[in-house]
Amino acid sequence: MTAPASGLVVSAHPGDFVWRAGGAIALHARRGVRMKIVCLSFGERGESQGAWKQPGMTLEACKHARQAEAEAAAAVLGAEIEFFDAGDYPLHLTSAMLDRMIDIYRELMPSFVLTHADADPYNVDHPEAARFAREARIVAQAAGHKPGPQVSYNAPQLYAFEPHQPEQCGFRPDRILNITEVWEVKRRAFEALPAQRHLWDYYERVALNRGMQGGRNSGRPMTYGEAYSSAYPEAVEAFA
Amino acid sequence: MTAPASGLVVSAHPGDFVWRAGGAIALHARRGVRMKIVCLSFGERGESQGAWKQPGMTLEACKHARQAEAEAAAAVLGAEIEFFDAGDYPLHLTSAMLDRMIDIYRELMPSFVLTHADADPYNVDHPEAARFAREARIVAQAAGHKPGPQVSYNAPQLYAFEPHQPEQCGFRPDRILNITEVWEVKRRAFEALPAQRHLWDYYERVALNRGMQGGRNSGRPMTYGEAYSSAYPEAVEAFA
Amino acid sequence: MTAPASGLVVSAHPGDFVWRAGGAIALHARRGVRMKIVCLSFGERGESQGAWKQPGMTLEACKHARQAEAEAAAAVLGAEIEFFDAGDYPLHLTSAMLDRMIDIYRELMPSFVLTHADADPYNVDHPEAARFAREARIVAQAAGHKPGPQVSYNAPQLYAFEPHQPEQCGFRPDRILNITEVWEVKRRAFEALPAQRHLWDYYERVALNRGMQGGRNSGRPMTYGEAYSSAYPEAVEAFA
Amino acid sequence: MTAPASGLVVSAHPGDFVWRAGGAIALHARRGVRMKIVCLSFGERGESQGAWKQPGMTLEACKHARQAEAEAAAAVLGAEIEFFDAGDYPLHLTSAMLDRMIDIYRELMPSFVLTHADADPYNVDHPEAARFAREARIVAQAAGHKPGPQVSYNAPQLYAFEPHQPEQCGFRPDRILNITEVWEVKRRAFEALPAQRHLWDYYERVALNRGMQGGRNSGRPMTYGEAYSSAYPEAVEAFA
Amino acid sequence: MTAPASGLVVSAHPGDFVWRAGGAIALHARRGVRMKIVCLSFGERGESQGAWKQPGMTLEACKHARQAEAEAAAAVLGAEIEFFDAGDYPLHLTSAMLDRMIDIYRELMPSFVLTHADADPYNVDHPEAARFAREARIVAQAAGHKPGPQVSYNAPQLYAFEPHQPEQCGFRPDRILNITEVWEVKRRAFEALPAQRHLWDYYERVALNRGMQGGRNSGRPMTYGEAYSSAYPEAVEAFA
Amino acid sequence: MTAPASGLVVSAHPGDFVWRAGGAIALHARRGVRMKIVCLSFGERGESQGAWKQPGMTLEACKHARQAEAEAAAAVLGAEIEFFDAGDYPLHLTSAMLDRMIDIYRELMPSFVLTHADADPYNVDHPEAARFAREARIVAQAAGHKPGPQVSYNAPQLYAFEPHQPEQCGFRPDRILNITEVWEVKRRAFEALPAQRHLWDYYERVALNRGMQGGRNSGRPMTYGEAYSSAYPEAVEAFA
Repeated sequence: MTAPASGLVVSAHPGDFVWRAGGAIALHARRGVRMKIVCLSFGERGESQGAWKQPGMTLEACKHARQAEAEAAAAVLGAEIEFFDAGDYPLHLTSAMLDRMIDIYRELMPSFVLTHADADPYNVDHPEAARFAREARIVAQAAGHKPGPQVSYNAPQLYAFEPHQPEQCGFRPDRILNITEVWEVKRRAFEALPAQRHLWDYYERVALNRGMQGGRNSGRPMTYGEAYSSAYPEAVEAFA
Repeated sequence: MTAPASGLVVSAHPGDFVWRAGGAIALHARRGVRMKIVCLSFGERGESQGAWKQPGMTLEACKHARQAEAEAAAAVLGAEIEFFDAGDYPLHLTSAMLDRMIDIYRELMPSFVLTHADADPYNVDHPEAARFAREARIVAQAAGHKPGPQVSYNAPQLYAFEPHQPEQCGFRPDRILNITEVWEVKRRAFEALPAQRHLWDYYERVALNRGMQGGRNSGRPMTYGEAYSSAYPEAVEAFA
Repeated sequence: MTAPASGLVVSAHPGDFVWRAGGAIALHARRGVRMKIVCLSFGERGESQGAWKQPGMTLEACKHARQAEAEAAAAVLGAEIEFFDAGDYPLHLTSAMLDRMIDIYRELMPSFVLTHADADPYNVDHPEAARFAREARIVAQAAGHKPGPQVSYNAPQLYAFEPHQPEQCGFRPDRILNITEVWEVKRRAFEALPAQRHLWDYYERVALNRGMQGGRNSGRPMTYGEAYSSAYPEAVEAFA
Repeated sequence: MTAPASGLVVSAHPGDFVWRAGGAIALHARRGVRMKIVCLSFGERGESQGAWKQPGMTLEACKHARQAEAEAAAAVLGAEIEFFDAGDYPLHLTSAMLDRMIDIYRELMPSFVLTHADADPYNVDHPEAARFAREARIVAQAAGHKPGPQVSYNAPQLYAFEPHQPEQCGFRPDRILNITEVWEVKRRAFEALPAQRHLWDYYERVALNRGMQGGRNSGRPMTYGEAYSSAYPEAVEAFA
Repeated sequence: MTAPASGLVVSAHPGDFVWRAGGAIALHARRGVRMKIVCLSFGERGESQGAWKQPGMTLEACKHARQAEAEAAAAVLGAEIEFFDAGDYPLHLTSAMLDRMIDIYRELMPSFVLTHADADPYNVDHPEAARFAREARIVAQAAGHKPGPQVSYNAPQLYAFEPHQPEQCGFRPDRILNITEVWEVKRRAFEALPAQRHLWDYYERVALNRGMQGGRNSGRPMTYGEAYSSAYPEAVEAFA
Repeated sequence: MTAPASGLVVSAHPGDFVWRAGGAIALHARRGVRMKIVCLSFGERGESQGAWKQPGMTLEACKHARQAEAEAAAAVLGAEIEFFDAGDYPLHLTSAMLDRMIDIYRELMPSFVLTHADADPYNVDHPEAARFAREARIVAQAAGHKPGPQVSYNAPQLYAFEPHQPEQCGFRPDRILNITEVWEVKRRAFEALPAQRHLWDYYERVALNRGMQGGRNSGRPMTYGEAYSSAYPEAVEAFA
């Protein structure tokens, strides 16, 4: 009767949801949580070096190729995916896109959102995606935005996933998610992104080291982990 | 068979565990968690203005009076209490006290610790108590400290409770504990501290405003809350 | 002969100037300081939950109702009010509005400005209002902006007023304004905002606790206070 | 055969590259490094108080006068200069300007960039110039931006130069450049900006004090210095 | 009848109160404020390079020479001075010294305290002096410390004076004191410290640049200034 | 004629200099830089879990075993090693040890120092070692400390090496040292620490990921890297 729990991922480019949140997506999907990815661009200009080495490549062709890869990765992870085609390097997010993003929040009513950290001195699209995900999360609360029968929308907790060089982005994890049971799924999603093979091992090492940190912090073994930083205080009913 | 869950509170003075963590203590105690308070001093010099206005007051008399109050408050909250008698303003924490504190960590094996924030420009005892609680938490891990049959000690999560002027202490809450069901217990513990009556209403207002914030952050109503800031990342198995 | 001293308040929504700066407005108004509020929106979409529960509500009707409330509150506090009708959730501040804002700085020549803090993870309009107030403050200094007979405009000190969850906004007060003598006026201004009755008690508790903090910091009793954070160093002629 | 080393300076107004980076420009130019200044505005509105006191002054006349001054200063320092004429107070940077800025990065292939710090509560153009310089630096890496024969563009290190009130801008220098041998050149460039004579001595004092700090940090004497803050980690082959 | 206003300066070495707070001392002394300097050491080991180049120099001889200089400087500035002879590099502050320091707070009842900033990566004595000054300020409030007829001691505001390399110490000024009228007095106090002649010009430049910043922030001209950072919020009765 | 360049490493426990600085030590040693390690403890209590599982283990036996391992590791890396035997968990650093540490600074006259970061919420010895290394570095400058024929001691740059969980320690790298050419040496030093085999792979992954980051930041390939954070500004003669 009640809608199943759901989670939302807002990703600037296809690679981001795979490297940074692939474990969380696969884990919750496996448990029956409806997972939806909003992929703001195809990464067609800034994260497609391989494609642009091919003779005769065009922007449209590049976008189609990257879309197919992203869809394949989402399928492996068990998530829905919706593309906003906002362009990349830089993103051009319109008010119509904001409107659609707000609708998604209200329709999906996610209990958590995963997106980029607020700062990234190496990338302009990542902070912009985070800003956009946060803005839509907030405006979705406004009763005067598309007023109608009141929905019970509550702005969900928002977790920033790990950027490529975390310390340079001021990223300090406060949650380490145990993704051991879905590691093989995440690893298979890597294979949907063959052009970025040089990152496969990098992010496997990240997962192993975050796993060891997770074990150290909890005293319970963890092999593979993903690091997150929460944006809001958590209301809790007990500590133990 | 397994030991019951337990929680440890490290408090510089009697008032601190009442104002700042009284709700958490009463809540967990009610649920069967063994709660133990280590009260490092009696607050005999720095938090006993009323006593020192009485003619003929001595340090010993003051300590006895404050000890009785602290024991009464702990009893109301449902917790054990152990005093270190380290003096206050400033605390003089010895290596024997550190040794005892480490023993307590190993004996109690708490699943969480509540103590002061790391900084407080209004108080020298609060940061010192926090430093001490953290040091003992760490040294208890050292296999070469009183070596013997290996215990399964894991260093527990540590939550800083709320200082009197939180922004001046760099305190940023990331947990708001719902203490509504034990509010009346916490309020009764206030009454064990009659000399600080001027703080009763202050901390009732703090609890009400933290409660409203808790409700805002979760979308679930909360009347009374206590704010905490976690020291370490939390290893989690899911977000929803 | 000389113009009376004046103060400027830049507020994203009607509630903000009441909850956060109502005491400062009433206090200075009572002392003959000309107080002017620029209210950037009517809060018609994001802060009018009550209105949108009424059948047949329209944006225009909501704006009119909120404008009347804001005017009533400003009248109680003794201040002028000018509305920019920039929309809310999110604000759409145009260059014409910036131009008008700059004119207001030059005409009013305020000796202080009160506005939002730079960050608020719960709200997109608050930081945008702060950015706008700061930009206009700076551009008003440009001799080549509407050049003419030189005015003696000096960019005024800017104080951020208190956000709803101060620690989450990085808000650290460095001024606590004693509003005891005008508390009843501020409280009456609350009554002009009946739809947000749930916040009346919240902000009364904030005022009482800031008052107690003010007293602790100065050694002089203060019953009701408002907290502020200054943006610029203050040039002073003495410390005592 | 190989292109000479080059450096890029992105400056909001003419004064900025003189006061803040004049030593670095002259020093590298003297050593055969091709130095190019991109001056985003003429400072015609916000930094031309003297001009606007002249009767009949127009925006165009002011821009011409400031352009001549800026060209004279660049010539003294030994650098090329290109103006974007983006207006000032505030800057209006268009996507065509971003496109041109990206081309400059790719053509010049600078080994370092000097620009403003990310924050300046006294000025809206400085942070905007920094944002723009960083965005172009990043987008120039995108293979899909004007795709073509692959250039070996590497995003260069970026050093923020010193703002007017460094502590208020969160500016913490991590490089002090020894400009002693070109001090006289920098000082002569000051003279190209006669309207800001009140700053000549100020920035001479800054240079002398930064020089003394440089000497203290290295143990090698330095008379005149310029302070910088690097944006990215530096890959190094040794420490000594 | 009432005691005159008073101010307290806690300085690690003789040079500190001269370079960093000499203007504030002279200014308040001229206005009849009783100014007292507590000089924790003679700077005999770490700030007496000149002395140690003299053949046959001993620690006692060095201390006497530096004491004479410090007394001469204090006399020029119009202040009392008390030495704690705690040694320097590093300071060895005993509990007897803490006790004496507390007595001074209670006897002097200063309305403000000037001391070092909390951090200085170039110096171990400066942060230790700041810690000591803060601890005594707090413990002086404890009714149980030397209990007796209640004095009306209120912990005073504490201003950190400017370290040698302010940005490296996290020093962000929020007060700029106008010392123009006593500049000549401060400059004469420099002459009491002939061995550090290389710093005379440095700190004259600091004063001139802080003065210009003071003028910029207030719109009122200031020639010489001293920068300070307040430790506690200020309770205020109005903004204008 | 001139002394060879030298570098100093101050390490709380044996593992630290291997995991965190082993590459830097081996690299500089290979280039003829005299590298000296001061190892403050043997890690006998806190980092010898394996040893304490052996029946009949004593503190002395544990210390001897760990000393042998540390000496073997230092030998592999090509460095001298001196032990202070200060105990661990917690370190007990005496004034005699400080005196010896100062002598080492003056004798070695290192051009750089490698030590721990200032904060580590997981470990009390690491920040204490950093504090000690910094204090000795500073006091070595004091002419009155063991006065004599003036040496040309200059306080060297200090680089913090990478802690186990860098983001939790506020560690933000600003140097990435290319250790590719000595990776095999560092890896062999790991083998001198057989009891911590679980960390071998962890720190190999750290080195590979830091290497990839080094390459990204410079545009020059780097396979293995070590991350460092500098404590002081660097005086430089050019940027390119």
